[in-house]
Amino acid sequence: MFAELGNVMRQIESLDANWIRRAETHQASLTKPPGSLGRLEEVANRIVAIQRSLTPSVERARIVVFAADHGVTAEGVAPYPSAVTGQMVANFLAGGAGVNALARVAGAEVRVVDIGVASDLGHVAGLHPRRIASGTRNMAREPAMTVEQVDAAIAVGLEMGRDAITAGVDMIGLGEMGIGNSTAASAVTAALTGLPVAGMTGRGTGADDAMLAHKIRVIEQALQRHRPDPADAFDVLTKVGGFELAGLAGVVLAAAAGRKVVVTDGFIATAAAALAVRMCPAATEYLFAAHRSPEPGHTALLMMIGQEPLLDLRMRLGEGTGAALAFVVIRAAVAAFTEMATFASAGVSNRSDLPDAVV
Amino acid sequence: MFAELGNVMRQIESLDANWIRRAETHQASLTKPPGSLGRLEEVANRIVAIQRSLTPSVERARIVVFAADHGVTAEGVAPYPSAVTGQMVANFLAGGAGVNALARVAGAEVRVVDIGVASDLGHVAGLHPRRIASGTRNMAREPAMTVEQVDAAIAVGLEMGRDAITAGVDMIGLGEMGIGNSTAASAVTAALTGLPVAGMTGRGTGADDAMLAHKIRVIEQALQRHRPDPADAFDVLTKVGGFELAGLAGVVLAAAAGRKVVVTDGFIATAAAALAVRMCPAATEYLFAAHRSPEPGHTALLMMIGQEPLLDLRMRLGEGTGAALAFVVIRAAVAAFTEMATFASAGVSNRSDLPDAVV
Repeated sequence: MFAELGNVMRQIESLDANWIRRAETHQASLTKPPGSLGRLEEVANRIVAIQRSLTPSVERARIVVFAADHGVTAEGVAPYPSAVTGQMVANFLAGGAGVNALARVAGAEVRVVDIGVASDLGHVAGLHPRRIASGTRNMAREPAMTVEQVDAAIAVGLEMGRDAITAGVDMIGLGEMGIGNSTAASAVTAALTGLPVAGMTGRGTGADDAMLAHKIRVIEQALQRHRPDPADAFDVLTKVGGFELAGLAGVVLAAAAGRKVVVTDGFIATAAAALAVRMCPAATEYLFAAHRSPEPGHTALLMMIGQEPLLDLRMRLGEGTGAALAFVVIRAAVAAFTEMATFASAGVSNRSDLPDAVV
Repeated sequence: MFAELGNVMRQIESLDANWIRRAETHQASLTKPPGSLGRLEEVANRIVAIQRSLTPSVERARIVVFAADHGVTAEGVAPYPSAVTGQMVANFLAGGAGVNALARVAGAEVRVVDIGVASDLGHVAGLHPRRIASGTRNMAREPAMTVEQVDAAIAVGLEMGRDAITAGVDMIGLGEMGIGNSTAASAVTAALTGLPVAGMTGRGTGADDAMLAHKIRVIEQALQRHRPDPADAFDVLTKVGGFELAGLAGVVLAAAAGRKVVVTDGFIATAAAALAVRMCPAATEYLFAAHRSPEPGHTALLMMIGQEPLLDLRMRLGEGTGAALAFVVIRAAVAAFTEMATFASAGVSNRSDLPDAVV
């Protein structure tokens, strides 16, 4: 572990329960039956504790999309060619991808980082070029990354997290694009949890039955070959991870160190969040799980990060699309907390005003 | 049934499956794996069929909040005094209620209608005064409304639906406020479904165990006394309904007749939607269920209207708060449909471009 990351991790503090209690007291004063905003209340209360303020703000939101390729695609584990990763980067920057449409609805910025795309992207306006290599190596044959590459990818994530904080971003969403990255995420999930690969592996962008069976076999063999240490997120990343997974883990850690709200997305983003939480368990207190993906391994990851997803719309696109929608739910939670009148200010009778005869 | 309502119901048409197929074809051309936007794709496809356009718009959204009181509160079925209904109307108009905060986040208008509040509201700027009576009668002793009152309340709903359509509103959300209205909604749900009252009745704004048991008994006795005809939504409304339930049912029918998207909210709004669907089954095709309420009767109502809720955040405030959040999910669904690039336009390789060797 390089020195910068150690410094970041030492800055990540557990939340102070006193702030949660202060938030709960304020919730009880608002013109609604106690608890009637359900999970919106939990969300707002935690953000009060994160920001250490009874007037929290989540106005400015940014999705950071890391694009990278995966050597394991040589094994035929994905139904789209690797060239799609670079093509989709161009699509993100032209504003034509799913995440662009949803981010516009959510009033969120989209930042696109080439952290390891295989194809030559040329000069593309708006791209953040941080390519570590032209895709990872094939985990079926050798470790996906070197230790130095993992360090470099995490450093890119720390940089992007710090940039967002410096820019005044309140909420950071985790986005990714990379043909083959559900294979890496399944391998990471099985490695971290010790659960059977078959139960952690799904169809990704749409593998058929034969491709899914082959994908499971490839991951099983990679894990048998490399035997990553489940307690060591770096070891897992090096052997079966990906540049985007390491980068997103870095974003989570930088954001948590800067006391910012971090919003996961689907399976791949949550695998990265779980890696960050394995490195630094307190990071989970800054995480909000955007949605539940149909990828079978996602539920195990959500349990690892200890977060219940806000949405369940059977989305499985990635890119940060789920994070974009979750931003709005979180904004609604905070708006209710900060903008609603109190029983006293609005002159609304509370339960205690009910005549005894009727109680 | 009065003549105007008959005319409205005759205008409600089933959706044309050809529009759904055209929408599906467009979805398949967009730069995402097929089906990967999950329920957002179903939502967009249905809106294409509702609007009969491959460039649908759901920009302008309005929540219509009907406020009314319930005579059954004399039985001690709610933990807040009836005075709260009128106080909350003032709160809505001052912008301090939950629905105001969430509607601001969602970019939606809020319209507030007094359709039967008991307390004197005086002159309040922005209120739509359409009071039919100062609350319903006590269903425990007599029918809640007269036939003429039900007709008048539905007519107010038709008026509010038509107003929204004339104003160019694309999506109409169903909001309500009224101490005691979960008792009426539970009675309506049990009457429409024939299911046991105990399973259709919850704590509303927060009844304790004793009040809940009493509430169930009051509803059981009212249903035994009045024996509403489950096939006849008017009869159910007259005997155990409420002004806001009749008004919201009218909004649903007017909106469906005008081919507008209608978004339910929680238990009370969905009871109104179920009444509208019992009057005119095709209305369900224009309905989107915003969220699942913890009220136990809500699931039966969702089955009646044949809609799976978009959200499940344990919200139970009503007012249209769930509808406000659902507006954003629906906007996201339509934005993805109308704004995403196609594989051809973005130069992104589709599955068919994958070399045979790798498939």
